[in-house]
Amino acid sequence: MEKKIRDEIENIILKDRIMTDLHELYSYSYDASFGEYLPEIVIQPKNAKEISELIKLANKYLIPVYPRGSATSLSGGSLPVKGGMVLDLTKLEKKLEIDKENLIAIVSPSVITAEVHKKAKEAGLFYPPDPSSSHVSTIGGNLLENSSGPKGLKYGTTKEYVIGLEVVTPAGDIIRTGGRTVKNVTGYDLTRLIVGSEGTLGIVTEVILRLIPKPQSVKTLVATFDKLVDSGQAITKILSSGILPSAMELMDNGCIRSVENYRPSNLPVNAEAMVIIEVDGHPLAVEEEIHKCEIICYKQGATDVKVAKDERERQEIWTARKMVSPAITQMGPTKISEDATVPRSKIPEMMKRLNQIKEKYQLNLVVFGHAGDGNLHPNIITDKRNVEEMKRVEKAVGEIFEAAISLGGTLSGEHGIGTLKAPYMEMELGEVGLLMMRKIKEAWDPNNIMNPGKIFPDRGQTKVVLT
Amino acid sequence: MEKKIRDEIENIILKDRIMTDLHELYSYSYDASFGEYLPEIVIQPKNAKEISELIKLANKYLIPVYPRGSATSLSGGSLPVKGGMVLDLTKLEKKLEIDKENLIAIVSPSVITAEVHKKAKEAGLFYPPDPSSSHVSTIGGNLLENSSGPKGLKYGTTKEYVIGLEVVTPAGDIIRTGGRTVKNVTGYDLTRLIVGSEGTLGIVTEVILRLIPKPQSVKTLVATFDKLVDSGQAITKILSSGILPSAMELMDNGCIRSVENYRPSNLPVNAEAMVIIEVDGHPLAVEEEIHKCEIICYKQGATDVKVAKDERERQEIWTARKMVSPAITQMGPTKISEDATVPRSKIPEMMKRLNQIKEKYQLNLVVFGHAGDGNLHPNIITDKRNVEEMKRVEKAVGEIFEAAISLGGTLSGEHGIGTLKAPYMEMELGEVGLLMMRKIKEAWDPNNIMNPGKIFPDRGQTKVVLT
Repeated sequence: MEKKIRDEIENIILKDRIMTDLHELYSYSYDASFGEYLPEIVIQPKNAKEISELIKLANKYLIPVYPRGSATSLSGGSLPVKGGMVLDLTKLEKKLEIDKENLIAIVSPSVITAEVHKKAKEAGLFYPPDPSSSHVSTIGGNLLENSSGPKGLKYGTTKEYVIGLEVVTPAGDIIRTGGRTVKNVTGYDLTRLIVGSEGTLGIVTEVILRLIPKPQSVKTLVATFDKLVDSGQAITKILSSGILPSAMELMDNGCIRSVENYRPSNLPVNAEAMVIIEVDGHPLAVEEEIHKCEIICYKQGATDVKVAKDERERQEIWTARKMVSPAITQMGPTKISEDATVPRSKIPEMMKRLNQIKEKYQLNLVVFGHAGDGNLHPNIITDKRNVEEMKRVEKAVGEIFEAAISLGGTLSGEHGIGTLKAPYMEMELGEVGLLMMRKIKEAWDPNNIMNPGKIFPDRGQTKVVLT
Repeated sequence: MEKKIRDEIENIILKDRIMTDLHELYSYSYDASFGEYLPEIVIQPKNAKEISELIKLANKYLIPVYPRGSATSLSGGSLPVKGGMVLDLTKLEKKLEIDKENLIAIVSPSVITAEVHKKAKEAGLFYPPDPSSSHVSTIGGNLLENSSGPKGLKYGTTKEYVIGLEVVTPAGDIIRTGGRTVKNVTGYDLTRLIVGSEGTLGIVTEVILRLIPKPQSVKTLVATFDKLVDSGQAITKILSSGILPSAMELMDNGCIRSVENYRPSNLPVNAEAMVIIEVDGHPLAVEEEIHKCEIICYKQGATDVKVAKDERERQEIWTARKMVSPAITQMGPTKISEDATVPRSKIPEMMKRLNQIKEKYQLNLVVFGHAGDGNLHPNIITDKRNVEEMKRVEKAVGEIFEAAISLGGTLSGEHGIGTLKAPYMEMELGEVGLLMMRKIKEAWDPNNIMNPGKIFPDRGQTKVVLT
């Protein structure tokens, strides 16, 4: 980086919040996805004003800007793929106010999502979105990727809880979108346009979240199925019986085995599927509903159903599910985690296709996910140093996306497009659909400085290149 | 309209679906808001392909295009303010499919919203948005204005239920946005950008709605308060007790009197407020919750609380609320219906300011609305032929907007901006906030043919002109 530019940056930000040493830059070169890219400089701004000045400078010198929270992105959201300037937003001044009377929270994007859960709970309130990473990921990162976790079925996604933002635009202006009311139709919904935009349309500097009263009671069961297709039937029957569970999580045989292998806990290693079902709400309703779910599971062929009797047993059930990621990470040095999503009724068909892809390319592919949403997580465990295998992985990933789209689904349910899925955008959206998104990006960010290399494929790029 | 253009239109659309006679055009010159504007031509397309060709033609000859459903807009959404071409979309081929397994509905925009409610109910499902006009307004109109009704507090707005669209873009291309899954983060959320865009970003030709299981039980009460501030306290106490009612409706003294005057039914004409509270869900939960609400209302100073014992009594309670609009319409020839929305805790303060405005300008102003959402409907009953009074109305309307914004609220909760609120956009959004919206509009619709004259103020326009 030229000294002149460096000097200008030092006029905006104190030196001790600027990093340019190689070992420092290296810590910012990767996220939880795939690939490593060194930035030129890492900056830790403290507030919107500093960010605004940095963005204006980036426009002046055409420097790519990469906003970054805890970098838990599984799609490459925070990778500085074109070098430039990483803005480490974890050092933004922290704010977390709960406004109990209006059922809202005012939060800075640097706050860890689990902190929002905790503070809301203390006020008798509830913030439902809960990605697996919520103990480490920032609320800002969750927002920009619209990552949501298991509660989407009953409670909707992160987007449904964001009603207002303060944003630094790609031109460096500070604007406010939405506000403190759930109902707001004053012009275009810029709030929801920015949520899920993966940092390509601006940098969020304050968030207004809608909260809801905390459900008074929660009950959980785990059901074991010899046949995967029976578990799909059980899920559908429960939903059409008038019950709306707060979570319906699926683990396939590969997952069950890998968890059991990682930490033996008597899981049914021969079952094709385990399903965790959770209901919440009024205690009387919850008691009756979990019992109904139990009966439906048995009627649909479950070999075993266990309803948690107390909070300890409930946590035990969730432990198996939460072990999935660490367990499969142990199975090989490289994990490719997808989130192709299909209409719920297509889950059995999608599982069949995933199995065919696994057999065809002889890969270690396991599947778990949020079955109630149709949001599956096929994970391929591989080794990026094995060039021959990576070529098979590449083909398999492409076929996973094709399968999801051909079943009426989508490339991404909650991880975002980032770098890995960009080449497949046109397959889902068509040429004009993608063009309409590009028009927004170009109108807002004509210099293409905000998180360049994400969402939009390079011209002619039609598949992901992992090797 | 030139013969050449007319001939080209007739090549796209059969003659019997084209209207140019003055008496026909007149039927399309107004909506439920304010003002009359004659279009040059009215066309009734049947499908997306016809609309696509018409939009291409409109771009070629720079003809303004005004999409229109049942024209129940209260903000001028469907007024052809710059003449041109009205597209009457009520004749679009009708589709209304319920996909029970995936909890979705596929609907053409020409379907009446009440039909969606009915079909969903028959399948044991529920589509919560319910604007007062739902028996006559189209789902397409509801979508483009994001009009929502009383259930926003518990169930969110129309936007929360739209997961996919087919849209004819301002260039005449047919695209699809979103899809059939609740979780979808494939690129920018064009679905939610278009919902609420008031027809300025394209014409919706198919809608995918998310449905939820129908609540098994519903209970309703009506509480009478001598003091308005007590009713606000009751609402807050109920919400912070962990109960999330499906509706909390407020009627002020002016409303109560006008309904009683319109159809005597023993309403408490001296009360400052009546509040209707409805809870839904599991029967056991609902029974307990409505009882809790009753107690809280009494504790907060209600002089009378009546819980409906059966469906007939429940309907009676709602009848009073539903009489408000017809009752106040009888009070004068011109009704200006606003929907300024404030954070819920500011309702007592907003009511005070509305009262001051009413006194200051000596107007017939009554207030009702969705108190749980902070979404109030101040209505001014006047006579547009009374030029002197209309000047006072103009000033009062401006002050209502100022009051809402100064209390942290918004110009519009659910009616949209249209023509009437456009001059106040910058007051809420700031210059740059409004500019970011304009950039999207200009990038998508460079010829400004889609519903021109709506949302965006003319340069320098700072107040609404009613006279």
